[in-house]
Amino acid sequence: MSEINFTLEPIGVIRSKLVDLAAAPKQGDEGGYQAWLELDARVAQGLLGIKVGDELIVLTWLHREQRDVLQVHPRGNPNNPLTGVFATRSPDRPNPIGLHRVSVVEIGDGRLKVAPIEAIDGTPIVDIKPVLADNINER
Amino acid sequence: MSEINFTLEPIGVIRSKLVDLAAAPKQGDEGGYQAWLELDARVAQGLLGIKVGDELIVLTWLHREQRDVLQVHPRGNPNNPLTGVFATRSPDRPNPIGLHRVSVVEIGDGRLKVAPIEAIDGTPIVDIKPVLADNINER
Repeated sequence: MSEINFTLEPIGVIRSKLVDLAAAPKQGDEGGYQAWLELDARVAQGLLGIKVGDELIVLTWLHREQRDVLQVHPRGNPNNPLTGVFATRSPDRPNPIGLHRVSVVEIGDGRLKVAPIEAIDGTPIVDIKPVLADNINER
Repeated sequence: MSEINFTLEPIGVIRSKLVDLAAAPKQGDEGGYQAWLELDARVAQGLLGIKVGDELIVLTWLHREQRDVLQVHPRGNPNNPLTGVFATRSPDRPNPIGLHRVSVVEIGDGRLKVAPIEAIDGTPIVDIKPVLADNINER
């Protein structure tokens, strides 16, 4: 097999009033923040067909998190037993890809306003996918 | 801001009887294949706490797909109107991250048997996350 390129190319950025990682809620539905997904011009035509009200999964790159953590106390609570990061939604993990299920609130030129989303301002976006009924599989 | 490292580190590989991309079903629930998720030894402790029956989201890197495609006819059918890749689940997209919702069928040493999953044998795994009720947000 030829060598695989494992480098993500960011497609845009989150523009949010949420700027402080410590203030970010643990899950999007605990806060209810709105944010703009600002797509790079070179990929904006990939938004064709997205409508207000659509349910999307936004994939982000949680670039401030620690990638060498393999076990955590869930939700940062030391009373919770030590758990493998793959059994938790901890943002500290080998590949800190964030999944955010959102609704489209407004559509602009090359950008989407969505909610709820707890990612902080400046978070890179790496993909956007529609929710498929009860099925989030690929292909 | 310091420079961001956008390189994924694969954490393991899919071991499946499905070896032919052309034979892969479009969605996991259309085929029902089982596969082993074989984790690299260095990250295996990240599986602590995963149990048979757990619902997981497996993130893969669809390394055979085209990254310069921005619009497609959904499901490869020319009768479907041209649509932006971010409004579809096409594996051809700038960052070909696959999302696969699966159940854990069996647990081995540093590996999990899961179903249904349509990713072909040899597909790199980049993350595993638990399904949180009706919520797939991060943090």
